[in-house]
Amino acid sequence: MRELLEAVAGGSLSPAQAEAELRGYVVGDAGRFDAAREQRRGIPEAIFAEGKSAEQVVALAETALETTDRALLTRVSESQFEALETHLGETAPDVTIDRRTATVRVTSPEYERPSLDATVGIATGGTVDGPVADEAAMVLRDAGASVDRVDDIGVAALDRTLDQLDRLREADVLIVAAGREGALPTVVAGLVDTPVIGVPVASGYGHGGAGEAALAGMLQSCTVLSVVNIDAGFVAGAQATLFARAIDTARS
Amino acid sequence: MRELLEAVAGGSLSPAQAEAELRGYVVGDAGRFDAAREQRRGIPEAIFAEGKSAEQVVALAETALETTDRALLTRVSESQFEALETHLGETAPDVTIDRRTATVRVTSPEYERPSLDATVGIATGGTVDGPVADEAAMVLRDAGASVDRVDDIGVAALDRTLDQLDRLREADVLIVAAGREGALPTVVAGLVDTPVIGVPVASGYGHGGAGEAALAGMLQSCTVLSVVNIDAGFVAGAQATLFARAIDTARS
Amino acid sequence: MRELLEAVAGGSLSPAQAEAELRGYVVGDAGRFDAAREQRRGIPEAIFAEGKSAEQVVALAETALETTDRALLTRVSESQFEALETHLGETAPDVTIDRRTATVRVTSPEYERPSLDATVGIATGGTVDGPVADEAAMVLRDAGASVDRVDDIGVAALDRTLDQLDRLREADVLIVAAGREGALPTVVAGLVDTPVIGVPVASGYGHGGAGEAALAGMLQSCTVLSVVNIDAGFVAGAQATLFARAIDTARS
Amino acid sequence: MRELLEAVAGGSLSPAQAEAELRGYVVGDAGRFDAAREQRRGIPEAIFAEGKSAEQVVALAETALETTDRALLTRVSESQFEALETHLGETAPDVTIDRRTATVRVTSPEYERPSLDATVGIATGGTVDGPVADEAAMVLRDAGASVDRVDDIGVAALDRTLDQLDRLREADVLIVAAGREGALPTVVAGLVDTPVIGVPVASGYGHGGAGEAALAGMLQSCTVLSVVNIDAGFVAGAQATLFARAIDTARS
Amino acid sequence: MRELLEAVAGGSLSPAQAEAELRGYVVGDAGRFDAAREQRRGIPEAIFAEGKSAEQVVALAETALETTDRALLTRVSESQFEALETHLGETAPDVTIDRRTATVRVTSPEYERPSLDATVGIATGGTVDGPVADEAAMVLRDAGASVDRVDDIGVAALDRTLDQLDRLREADVLIVAAGREGALPTVVAGLVDTPVIGVPVASGYGHGGAGEAALAGMLQSCTVLSVVNIDAGFVAGAQATLFARAIDTARS
Amino acid sequence: MRELLEAVAGGSLSPAQAEAELRGYVVGDAGRFDAAREQRRGIPEAIFAEGKSAEQVVALAETALETTDRALLTRVSESQFEALETHLGETAPDVTIDRRTATVRVTSPEYERPSLDATVGIATGGTVDGPVADEAAMVLRDAGASVDRVDDIGVAALDRTLDQLDRLREADVLIVAAGREGALPTVVAGLVDTPVIGVPVASGYGHGGAGEAALAGMLQSCTVLSVVNIDAGFVAGAQATLFARAIDTARS
Amino acid sequence: MRELLEAVAGGSLSPAQAEAELRGYVVGDAGRFDAAREQRRGIPEAIFAEGKSAEQVVALAETALETTDRALLTRVSESQFEALETHLGETAPDVTIDRRTATVRVTSPEYERPSLDATVGIATGGTVDGPVADEAAMVLRDAGASVDRVDDIGVAALDRTLDQLDRLREADVLIVAAGREGALPTVVAGLVDTPVIGVPVASGYGHGGAGEAALAGMLQSCTVLSVVNIDAGFVAGAQATLFARAIDTARS
Amino acid sequence: MRELLEAVAGGSLSPAQAEAELRGYVVGDAGRFDAAREQRRGIPEAIFAEGKSAEQVVALAETALETTDRALLTRVSESQFEALETHLGETAPDVTIDRRTATVRVTSPEYERPSLDATVGIATGGTVDGPVADEAAMVLRDAGASVDRVDDIGVAALDRTLDQLDRLREADVLIVAAGREGALPTVVAGLVDTPVIGVPVASGYGHGGAGEAALAGMLQSCTVLSVVNIDAGFVAGAQATLFARAIDTARS
Repeated sequence: MRELLEAVAGGSLSPAQAEAELRGYVVGDAGRFDAAREQRRGIPEAIFAEGKSAEQVVALAETALETTDRALLTRVSESQFEALETHLGETAPDVTIDRRTATVRVTSPEYERPSLDATVGIATGGTVDGPVADEAAMVLRDAGASVDRVDDIGVAALDRTLDQLDRLREADVLIVAAGREGALPTVVAGLVDTPVIGVPVASGYGHGGAGEAALAGMLQSCTVLSVVNIDAGFVAGAQATLFARAIDTARS
Repeated sequence: MRELLEAVAGGSLSPAQAEAELRGYVVGDAGRFDAAREQRRGIPEAIFAEGKSAEQVVALAETALETTDRALLTRVSESQFEALETHLGETAPDVTIDRRTATVRVTSPEYERPSLDATVGIATGGTVDGPVADEAAMVLRDAGASVDRVDDIGVAALDRTLDQLDRLREADVLIVAAGREGALPTVVAGLVDTPVIGVPVASGYGHGGAGEAALAGMLQSCTVLSVVNIDAGFVAGAQATLFARAIDTARS
Repeated sequence: MRELLEAVAGGSLSPAQAEAELRGYVVGDAGRFDAAREQRRGIPEAIFAEGKSAEQVVALAETALETTDRALLTRVSESQFEALETHLGETAPDVTIDRRTATVRVTSPEYERPSLDATVGIATGGTVDGPVADEAAMVLRDAGASVDRVDDIGVAALDRTLDQLDRLREADVLIVAAGREGALPTVVAGLVDTPVIGVPVASGYGHGGAGEAALAGMLQSCTVLSVVNIDAGFVAGAQATLFARAIDTARS
Repeated sequence: MRELLEAVAGGSLSPAQAEAELRGYVVGDAGRFDAAREQRRGIPEAIFAEGKSAEQVVALAETALETTDRALLTRVSESQFEALETHLGETAPDVTIDRRTATVRVTSPEYERPSLDATVGIATGGTVDGPVADEAAMVLRDAGASVDRVDDIGVAALDRTLDQLDRLREADVLIVAAGREGALPTVVAGLVDTPVIGVPVASGYGHGGAGEAALAGMLQSCTVLSVVNIDAGFVAGAQATLFARAIDTARS
Repeated sequence: MRELLEAVAGGSLSPAQAEAELRGYVVGDAGRFDAAREQRRGIPEAIFAEGKSAEQVVALAETALETTDRALLTRVSESQFEALETHLGETAPDVTIDRRTATVRVTSPEYERPSLDATVGIATGGTVDGPVADEAAMVLRDAGASVDRVDDIGVAALDRTLDQLDRLREADVLIVAAGREGALPTVVAGLVDTPVIGVPVASGYGHGGAGEAALAGMLQSCTVLSVVNIDAGFVAGAQATLFARAIDTARS
Repeated sequence: MRELLEAVAGGSLSPAQAEAELRGYVVGDAGRFDAAREQRRGIPEAIFAEGKSAEQVVALAETALETTDRALLTRVSESQFEALETHLGETAPDVTIDRRTATVRVTSPEYERPSLDATVGIATGGTVDGPVADEAAMVLRDAGASVDRVDDIGVAALDRTLDQLDRLREADVLIVAAGREGALPTVVAGLVDTPVIGVPVASGYGHGGAGEAALAGMLQSCTVLSVVNIDAGFVAGAQATLFARAIDTARS
Repeated sequence: MRELLEAVAGGSLSPAQAEAELRGYVVGDAGRFDAAREQRRGIPEAIFAEGKSAEQVVALAETALETTDRALLTRVSESQFEALETHLGETAPDVTIDRRTATVRVTSPEYERPSLDATVGIATGGTVDGPVADEAAMVLRDAGASVDRVDDIGVAALDRTLDQLDRLREADVLIVAAGREGALPTVVAGLVDTPVIGVPVASGYGHGGAGEAALAGMLQSCTVLSVVNIDAGFVAGAQATLFARAIDTARS
Repeated sequence: MRELLEAVAGGSLSPAQAEAELRGYVVGDAGRFDAAREQRRGIPEAIFAEGKSAEQVVALAETALETTDRALLTRVSESQFEALETHLGETAPDVTIDRRTATVRVTSPEYERPSLDATVGIATGGTVDGPVADEAAMVLRDAGASVDRVDDIGVAALDRTLDQLDRLREADVLIVAAGREGALPTVVAGLVDTPVIGVPVASGYGHGGAGEAALAGMLQSCTVLSVVNIDAGFVAGAQATLFARAIDTARS
């Protein structure tokens, strides 16, 4: 404790870093940032940008960078993208902005990328499922897991699915994203002995649209699946990260 | 007209038969029976027993027998079964009662079974879909269509499905019944060039249970399906009958 | 096989055409295009544009043209229309763009229009049902079926409906589109012996709006109908195509 | 006031009757009975039996008889029927119990039946709509209106409907009860210039069952209808009573 | 018939007027206009503009004017307003455009306003219910009924409601529009012996918002109400017109 | 601590009482009983009997008696009632069983009833709301608050409501329970300056039945209310207890 | 009365002020303003701006200022903000506009701020819950209560919650706002003996989004809560005001 | 192949065993049993008894025993329990019947229990969640995983939860079952770095009852969870088995 405060006094530790060390979270203008989440929970706090002002998003990203050497942001709007580019550009040389996925990942120069000895397969039913799968992939890559992406293998043309089975079987965990009737995770999970996490995607129209049919179908699946909310690519990726880390630990 | 009334006077035609001939429907104690439906619509009026008293069901069945030489009843309860057995047993020697499917089919001795040169395939995902498929089969057999029944080929064990593809491809029309997530019609319809009618079955539990997930999934299907209501085996069978008759006509 | 590869080497077959021939589907930047769907399923893969970028839509249309000599696109947005006009204008001389229906149909010079000996009647309840019916008609005409369109015969003025009965009875299959309470398919199907496919349309407001009342009513219909999802004109047209082709085959 | 209290003292008026006269409602063990409702609202308070104990139902019926010379009860269960038969049999010679409709109507010897110069037509789509229509008829007959009942004219066999049009046109107001897709009120209301009150009936199964499709369809109707809740025969009858009385007044 | 055709030949009757006379409806580019609705149904066909193009709306309005001497339009958008102003301005001198209510009423010089000896009271709970009530009032005034409008008497300040009771009691029929919890029609209907038509209004937010709580509450009302769909001011006005005309007839 | 353990050793404290003292909760066969809830939360843990076996309910009641000198049970079934009568009859002389409300309250001889200087008014709309109000009253009386119960004042007969206003205004807090459209809490809360807690009751039928219309209406209320779940009489009573205790404290 | 009218004649009282005094409410162009609500109900009428025109909002604000010396407005849109700034700027020097919260509070120079001896704690789960909590705080501060605001203590990082317990325990009443799964009010209410009012916030996405999961969760809470509608910060603040005033009265 | 057929001929292999070996599934009277599921999918096919007849359930159990040396059955009804006891008692000495959980597990004498080097923690919120957790435990124990069960730690008494954290942290995977508002998985998942699978339980009443609030809350959780359907203990257990096996493999 004394040491820590001396580091603050000496300038080698910022007040926010010290607060993060002592309390776990940092209280700023835009709220309390959970700097200890990765230690405690195994996955870092991502900044869910929807419903926050651009200033709040930037402030939270800066606190994240300062205390955890990186920031992950999801559901970022255009005006938030612009504010982040303006404010983070200088201090954080490594900014990855993905407008289609609506995500941002920033790392400070001090950041050391981890590595996990585990592979997560991510399969999608169609082109429109891409951004949701990208969100999951961002979290997994940030955590150092290997990602094997297999796109556009929906069951309307079953050969597309069956052709990729061997590859899907090689993954340690599978994330399968699908919209409309959401049958892909069921068909895949019936054929592989890997745990499958289903992600319903908000495509489709009319009755059961906006992903509700896909969600209900995955919950009712005759095979064994666990599921996350509609379009919750981040959650699927984070849950897969926890499994990947468990496997990495068991392997080492 | 004169002729008809003379037949009534002479006793060779009952008043109900004459009424059916003249007006199309017969007015009895239990309502108006649509005796001309088969001529007009191509499928006979079936008596939907749910919500009717046992007396009303018997009265309607008797009118149906008298004016169309047979009666089809669906959603029959135990007390209605008993009333039908008691009252119809004497006059109608050919009574088929199926308690599991909750249907009754009665024909008078004058009834001549028709024959259609068309085959309707009926596939089910699992054992619990059986009664709904049976209801469809009853209508089709009554109309004289060939029925090819393929049970228990749900996608949880995809080999069961794929093994039956050649047989499914031979039908002129396919009815595919499935509960839970209802993926079977989608997978089948992606692999055959036959028209597929999906029937959601009220199995499953929790969110999307009682057939709602299956219905929503079939409506959202990435392939081409038309759908009937949950557990509506009769409607699926009747719709397939209309197609089978159109094909039979085209073939002759 | 050897022959095919030599054709590629000789330039008379493009790599995509060869891939389509060998695998059934073609893997491009915008996903896997199911070039064999028409052979396998009887109806071509249509490109559902919603949720895809303009570049993806153009790329898929080009693959479709290259491997199947035509492309059908539905739910096309204004920016996608513009991208298609710009990119396809040169190579495909025959582009039909229908902004109100939000569809595009493009054929290459090599395309030969098929012809089916079967007629599909398409009826609508009111003016607002027009675009949905147009989507169905596009698919049917593409497949070579005769289309008989009868518009604006909703049951609020029942004479409009009854006046068209003889014409409706002449079709081999009927598609009936209606919004609001969706009673038209029920009334029509009670009067003709043709199979009827109901299409609920997302008109109306308040409770049961956006087509939900029409869908529920068609599923509950006292007559015999099969149904597609709200606004699913394409699915209705494709399902009717499969029946039309079955009848055409039976007739020949 | 003095007069009233003297009548109570003299025994020619019971305390409950005096309370009803003075306050409008009577407070008993089973709650406050709104004895003045008919004066104020034009229709008497009916006793909705569901959820009340048999004792409470009997007590309320006795108060109603004492203060308004009659009692109307709806949604009466078997045990309540029995309690009413036991307790009311002696004091009220005129008890009409209708188990299928689940209603009871009792009048005291002092009751004078009113008479209204107005006719209310009640049409039903099918046999299962009967009890709901009966509930409406009970209220109307109690109020002295003429009731013209036309049963089983659902649109699945449109001739049944059209044959009754002239009769339906003669009513001053129409109540039309229908379950399943609930199209009958829409079709009738498109053909007559009488006000139509639609009553959705809780028949049908699957999606939109329990009367929800019928309710949504009536609310979305392309013609002009007003609607009451599912199975609310009493409300429809009471609303028609108010109109009938207004017309009776206007005629006299 | 001969006479009619000679009038067309002589130019004193347009083809559309003749078609309306002979068939009841007129077939134009924008659909079939039900010119006989007022004769048959007692209320004219209103043009529901939502979902139609501006051209279609103008064409229908012109047919309405030509065959029935006036046009009523509801749910009119800004671009439709402009098209109507441009095209109808010349031929129809009497155009009433109400942007807040989104309605248009146009009459030709030949139009003769009818008059009904009946009063319809229209009450609203709050300021936001105004446009829905205006829509109802437009129909009633068009039909010649007297309208007594009482605004902003919601039950949150019950004195506002009770102060207006005497006035509400004088109407022959009452329309009561209310959003949020929709309690006003229930409270009013408990206090007057006039028939009350409830109109739920799509105000409020959160659970039960968009008028759903108000609709459900009016359907569940402990008093006697009939109800129309959320925001269906036109339907409420038309239903009240039918009652007003019946009373007017009874009075004369 | 030592003291406590010596009391256990000496037999003046049972092990369960000691565990409750030390840990706050007691672990038994039927789960962990939260013996410290009243200290921590201000209201005792009630035993929600639904879904538990009769043995579990008895075991929990015994632990509650032993550690807190009384037990409150809600949603008790007939078989649970019987088990409680059999097992508790001997040890707990003071057992109050209310079958209609489905509650049980037992106190040990050591129990001292508290007293709060605060009054909670409980109003109901109708007779069927009684049991829900009784559940609330049980909690309040257990906590020592004065309860003023005003029954059957629903707004269908508004005089019943207004007659009780003065009495309602005297309470410190009001609980208002109502089913069907649930308008009573809104009307009451518009007229008194007391905080009102609304309790929707699962009465009614059809659309919005089972209390859903009442809940939605109370949430949308134009006046100021807070609400508990449908039929949650216990929660309303406990929330009112917390307020009553706060007022009692402020008064003393 | 005479006095009051003389004050109007003398100009020391405006007609609106006199009307407010005599009738309780004032009738203006934009509706009836309930000037007596604070006297009767304990909380002033706030102007709910959504769905009203800018002119109506300004007129109501002016009436509020004139008769109650202040105006509170919620759900104010940008064009309404501008109209209020333009029109109120001159007469009311003290205008507080909060665009993020969408509220306005204006006081006249005569306004005297009250003071209550009671503290209301307002806790939020995350940054996006801020505006809803602000709305509650505005009402409470207007009423003179002390507000203790504790932000961003959601249960995902439980230490943030537990660190604030002592502070939360000091409040007389707690308002806890949370979106997504809405678990914060449950966790807090399990740990404090203060009454808790839960406010679900319309954050989140997919199934249960827009605050529906949070609302359902708070209604189902295992602890004791009362709840207001989604985003109903004003209602929560007003309900807390009523409790705060009751406590203030009890304390004095 | 030859070898296999000789074994059948020689009687050392039954026809069903041979069929299972050759095709993966066995076709019997009660459907196709997926005997190869464990090889292919890692978890055996469990027999979902709901909706099947007692004969079908027994037949499937016998096939399972014959081909996989054991049978797991879920959702078993009383009459099915009895049929299983009667028919399996002789051949299968080891039958575990759990009526409260509605499951049966039978093993043949040849069955060898596997063992996995991995621990799955199963936590429940309350007593009523027990049977759902038991279903999960049955699958896990069958697969050889260690199960650590921690019951009744719901967040209403947070100390119960926090006291068990160390134990929960030791598991490789956690299953957390909770009904009502379903907050327990969120709170636990915020505090441990283990993957958490949430199981909503169908407890609670009123709005969001039957597990819907719990499901929606878990899908909206601010922490990282994956979820299975309401009451889907089997699915949760099977998904955890797949993870446990992956960890076991990685460890060895």
